Amino acid sequence: MTYFRPSHLRNHFNYFNNAHNTIPGSLNLQPRAIAPKITLIDYNKNQAFRKELENPLDCAVYLDTESVSWMNLDGLGNETIWRQLGEVFNLHPITLEDIVNVPQRPKIVEYDDHLVLISRMVTIDKQSNFFVSEQISFVLGRHYLLTIHEKFDSDGFNEVRDRIRHQKGLIREKGVDYLFYALIDAIIDDFFPVMEIYGELVQLLQNEVVTTPTRQSLTKIHQLQQDLLLIRRAVWPLRDAVNSLLRDGNELISDETRVYLRDCYDHLIQILDMVENYRDLASSLTDIYLSSVSNRMNEIMKTLTVVSSVFIPLTFIAGIYGMNFNTDKSPYNMPELNWYWGYVFVWILMLIVGSGMILFFWRKGWFSNLDNLKK
Amino acid sequence: MTYFRPSHLRNHFNYFNNAHNTIPGSLNLQPRAIAPKITLIDYNKNQAFRKELENPLDCAVYLDTESVSWMNLDGLGNETIWRQLGEVFNLHPITLEDIVNVPQRPKIVEYDDHLVLISRMVTIDKQSNFFVSEQISFVLGRHYLLTIHEKFDSDGFNEVRDRIRHQKGLIREKGVDYLFYALIDAIIDDFFPVMEIYGELVQLLQNEVVTTPTRQSLTKIHQLQQDLLLIRRAVWPLRDAVNSLLRDGNELISDETRVYLRDCYDHLIQILDMVENYRDLASSLTDIYLSSVSNRMNEIMKTLTVVSSVFIPLTFIAGIYGMNFNTDKSPYNMPELNWYWGYVFVWILMLIVGSGMILFFWRKGWFSNLDNLKK
Amino acid sequence: MTYFRPSHLRNHFNYFNNAHNTIPGSLNLQPRAIAPKITLIDYNKNQAFRKELENPLDCAVYLDTESVSWMNLDGLGNETIWRQLGEVFNLHPITLEDIVNVPQRPKIVEYDDHLVLISRMVTIDKQSNFFVSEQISFVLGRHYLLTIHEKFDSDGFNEVRDRIRHQKGLIREKGVDYLFYALIDAIIDDFFPVMEIYGELVQLLQNEVVTTPTRQSLTKIHQLQQDLLLIRRAVWPLRDAVNSLLRDGNELISDETRVYLRDCYDHLIQILDMVENYRDLASSLTDIYLSSVSNRMNEIMKTLTVVSSVFIPLTFIAGIYGMNFNTDKSPYNMPELNWYWGYVFVWILMLIVGSGMILFFWRKGWFSNLDNLKK
Amino acid sequence: MTYFRPSHLRNHFNYFNNAHNTIPGSLNLQPRAIAPKITLIDYNKNQAFRKELENPLDCAVYLDTESVSWMNLDGLGNETIWRQLGEVFNLHPITLEDIVNVPQRPKIVEYDDHLVLISRMVTIDKQSNFFVSEQISFVLGRHYLLTIHEKFDSDGFNEVRDRIRHQKGLIREKGVDYLFYALIDAIIDDFFPVMEIYGELVQLLQNEVVTTPTRQSLTKIHQLQQDLLLIRRAVWPLRDAVNSLLRDGNELISDETRVYLRDCYDHLIQILDMVENYRDLASSLTDIYLSSVSNRMNEIMKTLTVVSSVFIPLTFIAGIYGMNFNTDKSPYNMPELNWYWGYVFVWILMLIVGSGMILFFWRKGWFSNLDNLKK
Amino acid sequence: MTYFRPSHLRNHFNYFNNAHNTIPGSLNLQPRAIAPKITLIDYNKNQAFRKELENPLDCAVYLDTESVSWMNLDGLGNETIWRQLGEVFNLHPITLEDIVNVPQRPKIVEYDDHLVLISRMVTIDKQSNFFVSEQISFVLGRHYLLTIHEKFDSDGFNEVRDRIRHQKGLIREKGVDYLFYALIDAIIDDFFPVMEIYGELVQLLQNEVVTTPTRQSLTKIHQLQQDLLLIRRAVWPLRDAVNSLLRDGNELISDETRVYLRDCYDHLIQILDMVENYRDLASSLTDIYLSSVSNRMNEIMKTLTVVSSVFIPLTFIAGIYGMNFNTDKSPYNMPELNWYWGYVFVWILMLIVGSGMILFFWRKGWFSNLDNLKK
Repeated sequence: MTYFRPSHLRNHFNYFNNAHNTIPGSLNLQPRAIAPKITLIDYNKNQAFRKELENPLDCAVYLDTESVSWMNLDGLGNETIWRQLGEVFNLHPITLEDIVNVPQRPKIVEYDDHLVLISRMVTIDKQSNFFVSEQISFVLGRHYLLTIHEKFDSDGFNEVRDRIRHQKGLIREKGVDYLFYALIDAIIDDFFPVMEIYGELVQLLQNEVVTTPTRQSLTKIHQLQQDLLLIRRAVWPLRDAVNSLLRDGNELISDETRVYLRDCYDHLIQILDMVENYRDLASSLTDIYLSSVSNRMNEIMKTLTVVSSVFIPLTFIAGIYGMNFNTDKSPYNMPELNWYWGYVFVWILMLIVGSGMILFFWRKGWFSNLDNLKK
Repeated sequence: MTYFRPSHLRNHFNYFNNAHNTIPGSLNLQPRAIAPKITLIDYNKNQAFRKELENPLDCAVYLDTESVSWMNLDGLGNETIWRQLGEVFNLHPITLEDIVNVPQRPKIVEYDDHLVLISRMVTIDKQSNFFVSEQISFVLGRHYLLTIHEKFDSDGFNEVRDRIRHQKGLIREKGVDYLFYALIDAIIDDFFPVMEIYGELVQLLQNEVVTTPTRQSLTKIHQLQQDLLLIRRAVWPLRDAVNSLLRDGNELISDETRVYLRDCYDHLIQILDMVENYRDLASSLTDIYLSSVSNRMNEIMKTLTVVSSVFIPLTFIAGIYGMNFNTDKSPYNMPELNWYWGYVFVWILMLIVGSGMILFFWRKGWFSNLDNLKK
Repeated sequence: MTYFRPSHLRNHFNYFNNAHNTIPGSLNLQPRAIAPKITLIDYNKNQAFRKELENPLDCAVYLDTESVSWMNLDGLGNETIWRQLGEVFNLHPITLEDIVNVPQRPKIVEYDDHLVLISRMVTIDKQSNFFVSEQISFVLGRHYLLTIHEKFDSDGFNEVRDRIRHQKGLIREKGVDYLFYALIDAIIDDFFPVMEIYGELVQLLQNEVVTTPTRQSLTKIHQLQQDLLLIRRAVWPLRDAVNSLLRDGNELISDETRVYLRDCYDHLIQILDMVENYRDLASSLTDIYLSSVSNRMNEIMKTLTVVSSVFIPLTFIAGIYGMNFNTDKSPYNMPELNWYWGYVFVWILMLIVGSGMILFFWRKGWFSNLDNLKK
Repeated sequence: MTYFRPSHLRNHFNYFNNAHNTIPGSLNLQPRAIAPKITLIDYNKNQAFRKELENPLDCAVYLDTESVSWMNLDGLGNETIWRQLGEVFNLHPITLEDIVNVPQRPKIVEYDDHLVLISRMVTIDKQSNFFVSEQISFVLGRHYLLTIHEKFDSDGFNEVRDRIRHQKGLIREKGVDYLFYALIDAIIDDFFPVMEIYGELVQLLQNEVVTTPTRQSLTKIHQLQQDLLLIRRAVWPLRDAVNSLLRDGNELISDETRVYLRDCYDHLIQILDMVENYRDLASSLTDIYLSSVSNRMNEIMKTLTVVSSVFIPLTFIAGIYGMNFNTDKSPYNMPELNWYWGYVFVWILMLIVGSGMILFFWRKGWFSNLDNLKK
Repeated sequence: MTYFRPSHLRNHFNYFNNAHNTIPGSLNLQPRAIAPKITLIDYNKNQAFRKELENPLDCAVYLDTESVSWMNLDGLGNETIWRQLGEVFNLHPITLEDIVNVPQRPKIVEYDDHLVLISRMVTIDKQSNFFVSEQISFVLGRHYLLTIHEKFDSDGFNEVRDRIRHQKGLIREKGVDYLFYALIDAIIDDFFPVMEIYGELVQLLQNEVVTTPTRQSLTKIHQLQQDLLLIRRAVWPLRDAVNSLLRDGNELISDETRVYLRDCYDHLIQILDMVENYRDLASSLTDIYLSSVSNRMNEIMKTLTVVSSVFIPLTFIAGIYGMNFNTDKSPYNMPELNWYWGYVFVWILMLIVGSGMILFFWRKGWFSNLDNLKK
């Protein structure tokens, strides 16, 4: 794990489109953007087919059929297409702006005949191990669902497509609101593996901080906290959006589907619970790290104090007998120098002083911890 | 107490079922799971009997009788049985998912003719001294109650079974909602011994931190905080669930039973109070620990400073008289070396300097604390 | 003040009755409990009398009289009496449980013909200087008030009894709801002296931490914070209870008395304000304590640094001239040793170096703080 | 600024009247209190007069006149007067208690024919530079306003009196509710100079902490935080009171005056914003102070380490050549002592070692910071 | 970036007009203020013209025309003009006060026939790199909009003027409420570049703190936090104001424009999200800074300990053989001095001791971190 989020991953979750000072409803498309591919999946209980649409205007015929029509766009892009889509689906300029000028904050907006959900889908970037996210926008009408992916390569919805094709589960028997739920559920489910990776990261950091804290540990912890905050900021407004779907009786969502959406809501709360849990853990790691730095300092000081306290007094004693007082002038001038056992006596004195100091420190329990120095 | 929750106990309270990317309503049963045992207890004021049911379909006859029918399943397991149960009890696929795909966040969901309560029951793991928990699900109908244990070995409800069998208390005279209350009460009561153990743990840690703080103390404190957070996360949604039972006038719960449920609610608030109290205590222990590390550092530095400050000046004095200036060349060259009382004079000088330093430190009150070094 | 709350005072405010796993409504009376004494005070505008009742059943005749009948029980105790009381006063089993199985969280519960208030009364334990508390339960009917003390020796209500006997104030002219208010007011007033003691304690600790912080200071601060938390937890639910009396138009409380209860409510908020204030103060004391430990370390290090920095270079100089280079072999070998002013020159050199160091430290302002070492 | 609030200023803002255990509605007047002076100002669009009233009963005639009658009492005092006032103005005993038993928490209480506002007015104590406060109580009727000052010497209302006398602004054309507003506005305006002084104090402390932190800095910061908390506690309930006037349609306040009161409300929010801002600043000062203590420690340790690391190895070298090995016994015994360039060689060695150490520290950038030691 | 906000930029965002103790509705204009320039832009779908108005009274004719009339004042100033404006636009004295007595807290006030929005516009001060702000006031009527700039030089609205002149977007086809929205949108858009600058500042500080923390780093961090708080305080009440426009069905705002305002609201929440994010980052920088100071201390202590622990024992050994025991008096008196290999033996001993110490520290991993000292 690198310690700073690479700059090309930084704008994820900033929810901050820097195209400002522009006319409301204007679309800020990148010049090199390709026209998005429109994939239609149309199904009812008995049959399902898939079709690539060249022109947004071709969508119009599917909007009012009784069968469920799911149109999916991979990638933003060409302005003409957006203007056409806006007309076909009767989208407000502000809605187009929200869909195209990514990233936007997740939210739900209800119009007369459709509702718009702006959401985020997360995945883990294989190279940097940071999570990345893209915006998924939903336009839910009475018989159709339009989904727009910010990029081309997402495949989080494949499992739902499978269920439609192979008639797994109830999806073919239910209406478009159930499809809407199934896709939201897929988005939410994609958060769990990300949370699992962050859970492991927390465990790894906990081990690192307790056993071998390094100078980078704190930066890693804060990078982790920052990422958790970003996830939280993606989930929280999504939770609000789903909650408002649950409470306000929007007629596009049947009561039956609402039971399923309540389950989505519970999962979002579970994710938020996990995020809070990991944030708590991360902030306690900061404490442990700081105390570990203090403990290390204690060990360093102990080493210095033991060595100094033992040898400085001994050096003093040796210094005493290095003085040059003239023993000839007086019997009181360092008579020890001329004693028969003088040198032996000094050594014994020094051994007593030295082992006295060591005993003193040993009784204070300093050495027991010195052993733990690397633990 | 080990410092980290053993991995096989870690998934408790994570509320995070890792069976994702699946069709809503699908049941993730472990392949080796045995079919759950269904125990029926049927009673009214006059009589009570107990019966093992082989087949979930056998439950059907008891659902509409006037007597109270309590069906209990120990263990999850066989998918067929769940499909049958779902049919017999008219359970929504999402409900089945919540019951079977453990762990789930505690919650209450109301349907037309029954209500579903997902709850957690805690016990202390005898080996590791960590608390563990299992999910208990309730399905309350007009004349029946279905309870599902995640595992086989729980016996928290035995006391209620006793009361039914021996006609203790009012339980035989009341309806199924009273039974529902009695079982919730039993679950809540099981939290108290767990809290008692954590209360003792807090006391032990407080003593440890004040008297003999070690490097592991902080990790223990954070493990404790983590566990308290887990308990809080089990109790909080349960509190919400009971509260919503109290406020929303669900007709399955009689006003009389509601009085008793209010008592449950009070107990849950007591548990939350205790959890908050212990969390406050634990976070103050962190402060005490850190200050104790600082104090220890102070003591180490004091020792070093006292020893160095006493002996370094003395060594300097000894060094002076170890110089080899030629006393023959000049009367000003170290005449002290030839004095009659020279050596004695130096010792007196050194005693004055040394005891001066010690007096200086003593007046600063450093020694009074040195005694407390191990306290 | 001892630093830890003595164990026999510890269960106060825990709100945690450890009689669990029992049948709802069962009473956990201590085996050695004596039957409580029932004291009846019956009064109206014109007359008042006091009477000891042997049997709870004797209360029955006073319940429906127009005069105010105040029955007071000192001490819990005999189960028979409680069963009789329950019958006479028409008390719900849960109410009996709340009254008898002390301690309970303060709360108010409204029934058809009476309301029940569980409250706590605090006093300061003379011996340990910790505050202690007991539970006071109220049952307010249309013409009667039943009060139950947890213990025998409380006399917080004597002043109200005096007012009744000597017809002081309005109490004799008002109904039973005014008596109810007067007793709640007496309970709340008892919190103020406790707060005063804790206010003084905060001041004492502030002085201690600023002038002579010891190792115990932090433990004392946390003990104080813990106690304040306990008081807060006694007052907060009481505040909620009084507030619910004010808002919900319970017909047992007249509008006139409600004006007085609003005053009680204000006093409870004042107490909570004070508690918050003292808690803020206590937490700022922690900061001051920790910074004072750091400052002390600074002083220690300064002492060491000054002594070492002055004497280590001097010792080096002395060491130079203690070398034994043979001056006979070369005129470059330590010619200073044979100079006429050699020794004097070295002393001058050392004085310059030593005072240079001291000047260096003095200009950094280190000595100005050394004087403050004990301040 | 002294660091602790002098004791005679301490009861301000405690909101805690220590006259407890008394009969509700009893007035705790100080024995030496003088009877308050009652000043009547009566005005309408055409005329205004001022009159001193000896007796509260004289107020009665002005209560129902169409002109605006403002009665002002300076000082609490004589009980008789209060009993008379209570009768004339029809005040509830609890209201009298709130007015007289100062200090009380700011609040608004509405009665049938009048409303009572308890408020606080702040000023800066010239001597100690601490702010002080007194209680101002308002009784607003249909045609009269009664204001009661806790002390004699306040003159915050003079400006309003001036406006009445000289017919400045709209005050003479409006009713008594406008007068009520004008006085509240005057009280609120008095908070701003106090906030300005605290704003300057924050700036001063910020400079002190960044440039010359002393041991008292932290105490000053906490004293500041404490004072800001006190101001907050005076403003917050006042804000609640004004807000309840705005929302609840009390008929004593006209819609026109309500527009002005909304302005008061905005000012109160501004004051609270400032208080929060200063509290944030003060708490960041604590961080800067603590980091500055740590930095100082770093500098001390650097000094010690540089001096020790340079001179200890040099002293060791000098010590080597101070050894007394007998050069006569062996050519390997310290031949350097007899070298021609021995002494010069040792000096060169020591210069290399010493400047090597200094170079080592210089490359680590330690000296750049040594210069900043006093910055 | 200077570390303290220059004093001439300090009053921004204080929301604190120091003209107090004045008659409500009085205008505190600076004596040297010039009369504001009134620029009228009047347009409808078909035509648009721009005109400078000398006299506020000239505005009157445009107020009731069906075309959209936008009057803009640059600068406050002349009191006469304000009195005339107040009359022409029917402004409440309090409104005039709010517009003129800058700065005020952002807010919205609704009157019968117009609504008043007080807002703030931010820009970055080119010289000091601090953001500055000015107050923009809006008066929205049925067919007119009056905007008042605090200063002359703001040009944030030019882009809207352009859109009107060149008929870009929908602005010419919509009513005055759309113009109102467009200007609010322009104000909000101006916050984004400010946030971008602060985002970069956070990144710069993060790099500084991790790589080369200096004593000023903490002051910079706190200056940053302070500024973010100021921005938050400008945006938060604006958010409240826009929210109240959205919820309360003010008839001056059409439902169509409300959809656009909801977009403004989302942008304000995005800004608040960013502010919170940067504040979190800044507070984590404080942690990293403090831990970096501690780590630095550790490195200093390690250096001291390594040098001392290696050389102090060696100096002791050298000191031993510098003693002057008389080898002639006894064969036990320092016989080593006369050994043939004595000096060599001592050097070997010292090399063993020295490298033993270094090995000891190396095995503890101290040197690996010494390399990181500057990292």
